[in-house]
Amino acid sequence: MNLDKHIMNDLEAGKYSKRGVSSSKSEVHDALEGLSRGLYPKAFCKIIPDILTGDGEHCLLMHADGAGTKSSLAYCYWKKTGDLSVWEGIAQDAIVMNLDDLLCAGVTNDLLLSSTIGRNKRLVPGEVIRAIIQGSRHFCDKMQLYGIRLELTGGETADVGDLVRTVIVDSTVCARIRRDQVIDNARITAGDVVVGLSSFGQTTYEDAYNSGMGSNGLTGARHDVFSKAVARMFPESYDTGIPDEMTYSGTMDLTDIEPETGMTYGKLVLSPTRTYAPVIKAILGKYRNQVHGMVHCTGGGQTKVLHFIDNLHVIKDNLFPVPALFSRIREIGGTPWKEMYTVFNMGHRMELYVPPVVAPALCSMAAAFDLEARVIGRVEGWTGRRVSVESPAGTFTYDKND
Amino acid sequence: MNLDKHIMNDLEAGKYSKRGVSSSKSEVHDALEGLSRGLYPKAFCKIIPDILTGDGEHCLLMHADGAGTKSSLAYCYWKKTGDLSVWEGIAQDAIVMNLDDLLCAGVTNDLLLSSTIGRNKRLVPGEVIRAIIQGSRHFCDKMQLYGIRLELTGGETADVGDLVRTVIVDSTVCARIRRDQVIDNARITAGDVVVGLSSFGQTTYEDAYNSGMGSNGLTGARHDVFSKAVARMFPESYDTGIPDEMTYSGTMDLTDIEPETGMTYGKLVLSPTRTYAPVIKAILGKYRNQVHGMVHCTGGGQTKVLHFIDNLHVIKDNLFPVPALFSRIREIGGTPWKEMYTVFNMGHRMELYVPPVVAPALCSMAAAFDLEARVIGRVEGWTGRRVSVESPAGTFTYDKND
Repeated sequence: MNLDKHIMNDLEAGKYSKRGVSSSKSEVHDALEGLSRGLYPKAFCKIIPDILTGDGEHCLLMHADGAGTKSSLAYCYWKKTGDLSVWEGIAQDAIVMNLDDLLCAGVTNDLLLSSTIGRNKRLVPGEVIRAIIQGSRHFCDKMQLYGIRLELTGGETADVGDLVRTVIVDSTVCARIRRDQVIDNARITAGDVVVGLSSFGQTTYEDAYNSGMGSNGLTGARHDVFSKAVARMFPESYDTGIPDEMTYSGTMDLTDIEPETGMTYGKLVLSPTRTYAPVIKAILGKYRNQVHGMVHCTGGGQTKVLHFIDNLHVIKDNLFPVPALFSRIREIGGTPWKEMYTVFNMGHRMELYVPPVVAPALCSMAAAFDLEARVIGRVEGWTGRRVSVESPAGTFTYDKND
Repeated sequence: MNLDKHIMNDLEAGKYSKRGVSSSKSEVHDALEGLSRGLYPKAFCKIIPDILTGDGEHCLLMHADGAGTKSSLAYCYWKKTGDLSVWEGIAQDAIVMNLDDLLCAGVTNDLLLSSTIGRNKRLVPGEVIRAIIQGSRHFCDKMQLYGIRLELTGGETADVGDLVRTVIVDSTVCARIRRDQVIDNARITAGDVVVGLSSFGQTTYEDAYNSGMGSNGLTGARHDVFSKAVARMFPESYDTGIPDEMTYSGTMDLTDIEPETGMTYGKLVLSPTRTYAPVIKAILGKYRNQVHGMVHCTGGGQTKVLHFIDNLHVIKDNLFPVPALFSRIREIGGTPWKEMYTVFNMGHRMELYVPPVVAPALCSMAAAFDLEARVIGRVEGWTGRRVSVESPAGTFTYDKND
């Protein structure tokens, strides 16, 4: 399929690649060659026929993702401070990375959830596993209050210290919806506007300020922000085979205070991935047919939409102000602005592609959850696939070729 | 729930525990406290109501497991020999550890399959990911020939070198069956016999001799069999924080030949986890109602059944001859016989609890697949929960108390 080749060429020379991380996953896409893309090739998640019941009016989604290297930072922070609550955040990260992907395909209820934890038992005791599992339960209980059922079906905790330095936390979800309820990004069209939902602040369903961090770009953020003091204290928290100048090359310690938010840098970067599920459930309940597409700005950041469009240009010229978290990551790490927008969400992690007429209503519905939404851009016709981002440092364009 | 306390006390003093591996998972069971055990608490897998359709006559199973540290050995073998085929075996391991668990609950068709791969991109290139993903596809294609549909729904490959030394391969499956088709181990009763299905040899649906290795006990097997030469060549293949005398404390190199089988020790231990799906599908097609219980002898080995019985004594006095693999692991590692039966399957990895009258028919049906089956034991009444194993070195008893 050779997805992402262009973005890869843009990025592979960058430091994220040297750290053994690719935000474009071209190799992975190559490895998937020959596998079906499902019923709706442009949908955000792979969607397959409902083979569980054989019902032609329904379809199934099964999806996997995890907290990534955010758990490495949680490990360091927990070891240094004794704060077990960061593990509840990791549980939420692993769930929301799946839940919010499925939202983009139109799923807002009745998800089966399974978790897979791989740990180094020598370093990660049962109290951590307990905090992760109970964190999953608490998150599901909270979603239930908003009419979103996430059923914990079980999972696996494996002691695999020869593979895992500390702990890795993944989740898999499964859902079934009517085919006529699918949000298929194939409907994104010239004339649509892009409604972005803020990734930072504090919604009615959150207990604290959210920095906007999701569960992408953590390898970069961790090594760019934090200093060699973390490497010395927790050598088990990273791959020591990576060149020294690329690891923990920042200036902060875990408990240094970020001035704008008053939070420790550790907690700022560990801020649990916000779910948009309560808001999207409300929006789709009323406007499902008007939503032409939804994109969860995860790997690829603000350029993620490039996977889902043809002959369109997405102009993002009214983005949210860059939240403190990403400003600090950029300043401390010296990362080029253009690269920042391909690794981090930079202010909104969910975007809806809709006709202009419904945008104000969506923004009002989000506001009811204390979630800021705004028209961050628009879609125009184009020969090819392009995203333009208007940033405080100028306008950047990103093209995608097959 | 405090499952396994007794077995834990038996084992935690052993070397497996020192290596950061527990075959009893007592800590994990503790962490699950308060989570529901599902509709059929004695069933081999957690079974929940069918919340995807709301149909009260059906139920759902979602299940997760993986290849564990077998992938670490695959890494070493592939690096040393260039043989990519071992990764296809790892794909099969991760699938079969789920598929054969679900067989025990009565599922023999229409499974959704998702895989999660976490890799260190610096060490594990795209060709390995491709081999794993294509291996999954090949395995599913083969099962299709036996009327067993495994639908590849997608998955996630994450570059997480700060967490994963080499590569970790997990799978999650989801299935839906009629409630009246569930195999509920609660029906295991005094008077039943235990039909064991051989874990070694070569069935009609396998391309080569299978040593009997599953995907359990790999940390032990790897370190007991292989020598410090492997540690020196591939320090990335293990947790160097484990005491030196516990790691790669065996005598073999990866490509040394095991005399009885003529296979390299690497390939012998990497033998892909055999699935029993074609055989079990045939058996349940005819004898589902007579099967009182099924146990997949994974973590816990021949004592696994202790989780699923009350006031019963399972006497295993006619086991298969110990296959070459486990004989070598025991000899080279000097592991006590009693411990061997709690870590490895020792000859059969699947057992069915049935009335004596149907046992001969089950053995005949297995034989049609060139799979040896035999009555390996029987069930008697008892005050408590006990398994007895008659081994070449004497009879061992294992009790389980809450």
